[in-house]
Amino acid sequence: MEKETGGRGVVLVSGGMDSAVTAALAREECNFLAFLHIRYGGRTQECEQRAFLALVERLFPDRFLLTDCPSLRDIGGSALTDRTIDIPEGSLDREGIPVTYVPFRNAHFLSVAVSWAEVLSCNRIYIGAVEEDSSGYPDCRRVFYDAFEQAARLGTASAGSSLTIRTPVIRMDKAQIVREGARLRVPFDHTWSCYRDGDKACGRCDSCLLRLRGFARAGIPDPLKYEIGSTWSHK
Amino acid sequence: MEKETGGRGVVLVSGGMDSAVTAALAREECNFLAFLHIRYGGRTQECEQRAFLALVERLFPDRFLLTDCPSLRDIGGSALTDRTIDIPEGSLDREGIPVTYVPFRNAHFLSVAVSWAEVLSCNRIYIGAVEEDSSGYPDCRRVFYDAFEQAARLGTASAGSSLTIRTPVIRMDKAQIVREGARLRVPFDHTWSCYRDGDKACGRCDSCLLRLRGFARAGIPDPLKYEIGSTWSHK
Repeated sequence: MEKETGGRGVVLVSGGMDSAVTAALAREECNFLAFLHIRYGGRTQECEQRAFLALVERLFPDRFLLTDCPSLRDIGGSALTDRTIDIPEGSLDREGIPVTYVPFRNAHFLSVAVSWAEVLSCNRIYIGAVEEDSSGYPDCRRVFYDAFEQAARLGTASAGSSLTIRTPVIRMDKAQIVREGARLRVPFDHTWSCYRDGDKACGRCDSCLLRLRGFARAGIPDPLKYEIGSTWSHK
Repeated sequence: MEKETGGRGVVLVSGGMDSAVTAALAREECNFLAFLHIRYGGRTQECEQRAFLALVERLFPDRFLLTDCPSLRDIGGSALTDRTIDIPEGSLDREGIPVTYVPFRNAHFLSVAVSWAEVLSCNRIYIGAVEEDSSGYPDCRRVFYDAFEQAARLGTASAGSSLTIRTPVIRMDKAQIVREGARLRVPFDHTWSCYRDGDKACGRCDSCLLRLRGFARAGIPDPLKYEIGSTWSHK
């Protein structure tokens, strides 16, 4: 399939591996690219911001913006924004929606992206949500993005029917994302996936486990430093 | 029609007359009520916050929250968030979407409300948007709220199909809103509608003109103090 090129895109870049690969894919499709990073008072805010700026340096978007959604911490209700709730670890087999779910978080992020897209005359929003091999978050499902896209078309002045919300990695599993990132020379060593802050990723939280499993299954070494040896590379 | 009662509602209360009447209507329908006020770096932030707190004092919700959306000012693109763009005045006859439109603003507000509703186990969001007699903002139309409601149902963990976004004044003109507020004893003297900050409302911006015309048509005096004599009361 031939690549669709020439669009103007706003990319939500958290600094994790999924958004880094999404940003690299958006670069192939757009001739104007704006990277958006949103601090929301999460535990890993500084690590993610550092990863975002490293990606800006290496993927050179036309514009970038760091901004804030403090209401998510004011509201709480998640292990990522409330330090009294422990980060679960050690297993990917739990049922249901995990305590790391931040209530309706991605709607906040999309709202900021759509507002900025209006000002920059962009017609594409990119977000690195993963549905298939994810943690079970409701706001990472394509049905949600379809509905939000419709709301954005109806609730904006200029976008009209041309606005699309693109989720290029949503159907990929983590191994596919790793391979796609390797093809695009994504600097994985400058991404941050861990739910904890620190100099090294913990290697034990769900997000580290998903990442490590993805690299192991792709047969590509993860260049990131972990506190503990990778669980998956020894299996 | 009998009133539907017993719901749990989060009400977006800006401090303007439309949201004050919406809040009073929500009080009739809910047995748990939470008022949400969002500062977004607009020119009238202090006036609106003062109005919100006065409404909290007088309508006594079970919970209230003041929080922030600073990204709207970081993004700009509106006379309400960018002081280099002048507030238009003197006429309600202009065509198109006015420069006071804040790009996709109400999506930000709804996102915060939905997140808080998840934490509080509320199933209703109230917003005082007005479509019929409004300034032509795309995010004040019911089609937008229908689409956003669908996104909220799909993007949240607990809400499911029971979540509704309620816009009880959306089809009313300003005169009807004034009459409804009078019936509900809404303290209009503690609301703030003006697009400018100050001790008194300017009486010249679109928002003041819409309000004054509404009170004049309802045949009810506006208890608010204005810098200049009301245009409408002398007609």
